[in-house]
Amino acid sequence: MVNEEIMKSLAIKTESKIVLLVADGIGDIPSKNNQTVLETASIPNLDRLASQSVCGLADPISCGITPGSGPAHLSLFGYDPIKYQIGRGVLEALGIGMELTSRDLACRGNFATLDKEGIITDRRAGRMATELNEKLCKFLQDKINQIGEVKVIIRPGMEHRFVVVFRGDGLEDALSDADPQKVGEKIKFAEALDPKAKKSVKTVNEFIKQATDILKEHYPANTVLLRGFAKYPGLPTMKELFKLTPAAIATYPMYKGLAKLVGMEILETGESIEEEFKTLKKNFEKYDFFYLHIKKTDSYGEDGNYEQKVKVIEEVDKYIPEVLNLKPDVLVVTGDHSTPALMKGHSWHPNPFMLLSKYIRVDEVEQFNEKECVKGGLGRFLAVDALPLMMANALKLQKFGA
Amino acid sequence: MVNEEIMKSLAIKTESKIVLLVADGIGDIPSKNNQTVLETASIPNLDRLASQSVCGLADPISCGITPGSGPAHLSLFGYDPIKYQIGRGVLEALGIGMELTSRDLACRGNFATLDKEGIITDRRAGRMATELNEKLCKFLQDKINQIGEVKVIIRPGMEHRFVVVFRGDGLEDALSDADPQKVGEKIKFAEALDPKAKKSVKTVNEFIKQATDILKEHYPANTVLLRGFAKYPGLPTMKELFKLTPAAIATYPMYKGLAKLVGMEILETGESIEEEFKTLKKNFEKYDFFYLHIKKTDSYGEDGNYEQKVKVIEEVDKYIPEVLNLKPDVLVVTGDHSTPALMKGHSWHPNPFMLLSKYIRVDEVEQFNEKECVKGGLGRFLAVDALPLMMANALKLQKFGA
Repeated sequence: MVNEEIMKSLAIKTESKIVLLVADGIGDIPSKNNQTVLETASIPNLDRLASQSVCGLADPISCGITPGSGPAHLSLFGYDPIKYQIGRGVLEALGIGMELTSRDLACRGNFATLDKEGIITDRRAGRMATELNEKLCKFLQDKINQIGEVKVIIRPGMEHRFVVVFRGDGLEDALSDADPQKVGEKIKFAEALDPKAKKSVKTVNEFIKQATDILKEHYPANTVLLRGFAKYPGLPTMKELFKLTPAAIATYPMYKGLAKLVGMEILETGESIEEEFKTLKKNFEKYDFFYLHIKKTDSYGEDGNYEQKVKVIEEVDKYIPEVLNLKPDVLVVTGDHSTPALMKGHSWHPNPFMLLSKYIRVDEVEQFNEKECVKGGLGRFLAVDALPLMMANALKLQKFGA
Repeated sequence: MVNEEIMKSLAIKTESKIVLLVADGIGDIPSKNNQTVLETASIPNLDRLASQSVCGLADPISCGITPGSGPAHLSLFGYDPIKYQIGRGVLEALGIGMELTSRDLACRGNFATLDKEGIITDRRAGRMATELNEKLCKFLQDKINQIGEVKVIIRPGMEHRFVVVFRGDGLEDALSDADPQKVGEKIKFAEALDPKAKKSVKTVNEFIKQATDILKEHYPANTVLLRGFAKYPGLPTMKELFKLTPAAIATYPMYKGLAKLVGMEILETGESIEEEFKTLKKNFEKYDFFYLHIKKTDSYGEDGNYEQKVKVIEEVDKYIPEVLNLKPDVLVVTGDHSTPALMKGHSWHPNPFMLLSKYIRVDEVEQFNEKECVKGGLGRFLAVDALPLMMANALKLQKFGA
């Protein structure tokens, strides 16, 4: 991808519309009957689309690198995922649906157990029930709302996990984890890794002290460990970089959060895939770039549930004609990364990718799957190049140089 | 490839084992019967392996760039060959099996001829016999062992060529060649290209004066020309970068030297290909990364000896089942660069490449040759990405970001 300054200078605003359909973790490796999920699934609409598209394989980050959802998505949105690394705390906050501002320092927290000598004996406080976690977060929040002029926002996650957001001026994220990472040690306070983080350190450590004091009667959840401190990164928006007016249709908080990071409008939608496609149709006139996210391809991949991953893809297939009816100028169907059912997790394998527009060189790919995409006219490329390619096909990029 | 800091942070130590089999210069262009050496050779085991692997074409450095052995190998070992350029002097020293330290300044030397007026009349002293070269080097070494506090080590190469290593503190390699590069001129002394190289210049020029004085009765070998001054580069080791415990099996000094540069253990082995594979088997338990180097594919390519290159590849083919019996988690077969018999030299053509592991998308390639690899699932990629890919397939890389 050319650099941001060049992209900015080439991008133009037009009426044309781009739809980016991301089936999370859709890429697979052969397992059942030596076939991938895409090869097994009955997807006549996606296959027909492939035969009319130009196809390829997109590496999320770089050859051999397995990405988290954050970098994998940034790449597809046209952002260099190495330049824009989003800290754990921020991703965790986005993942539970918190709204962040540029003044926020976010971190992940655990409720943990201290013995009488002040030694940590359990870093997860017995993996408590989520309900108890919710109660304890509320209890803490009632007592700690503010530290100095910094606002403190505490939100529960699953089991023993929660998120704290410190909102104030001058907070930096160059501080060490306040977590010894093992039992048998005392509480570890955060330390500044840069003098600029002094205020953060003071605030965070005061929070730990107050929280431990407030929780002292709540054995086994009688202290907190904080880690993954991260400032909300100030990303340029897709409007600034690409002159797009983008909207996101997603059901999971993490993806809405990522979309918001790059300045997308988050469209209200329901929980089902059907509702997501309805939302696309309903809002089609109002934006020129749509990111539609399907989560369950990834979830079932992570579970190693090959059959259910097949079913989700077959369900997505049914809505393809409705998308085509909207006549987007550019339609891309791809994944953010692969989540092979066999591996039960994200992997490094490049994503099957297809792009439909009036201006493509249709290739010989006849079906939408990993093996067929090898033969695709786009070859193998970096996912960060997908956005310029979509914009080019939507005639939203001017000529470079004369 | 992502940068070194990221690779370092993602790499993990595991039990899995990687075998990288490099048939030097294996890539070819069609000549005899309009076929490449790989197409002509009868290689049932390599072909079967290709049908079970994921294949592709790897560019050693960059499209169109013909590499020397140094950069071509560094690339395969996961090192950016542009960032880590190894000077000629160091490569020459490695090539004749010299052991270098980080204090060493190495250079290539020629015995040459001066006439009575001090004019160079032959830059190669009549391409003397190697035996005479050996005698002269010993003669010089006996008289010049030290210049100031700098130790001087002189070793013969072929014909008129030798290597000098200056070992001492504060030697830098920013100095010009002490070689006019043509006859009809006087001795040319080295000049500093940077003030830091003052000590090097003084030492090197003193060596030239003393050597010319010592050699004055040895017409036509009565002076020396020195060029390609290079410091031994301090490369991070594969252990530091990738947490690997690597071993090298190679018969030629140059490749052992390159392997040592990146921190590989050099395994004792015999001269034959059979012995190299035996060495692999014998040491298989002790390391987690093996680089096995076959030299003669390149040597015969350089000679334009198509038939012998075919035979070497057919010999390598016989040992493939033995490698598979070891059950490496990842096996790669490739070259470092192409050496087409027709061209009698290295070339820029990408290397046929195949990778076998449990986690690949097997592609439609049925034979191991250049034309088939075009259809491979890996497409065309940079050789420097091979190492991350091998590590990913050996499950030695953690996820990037969350």
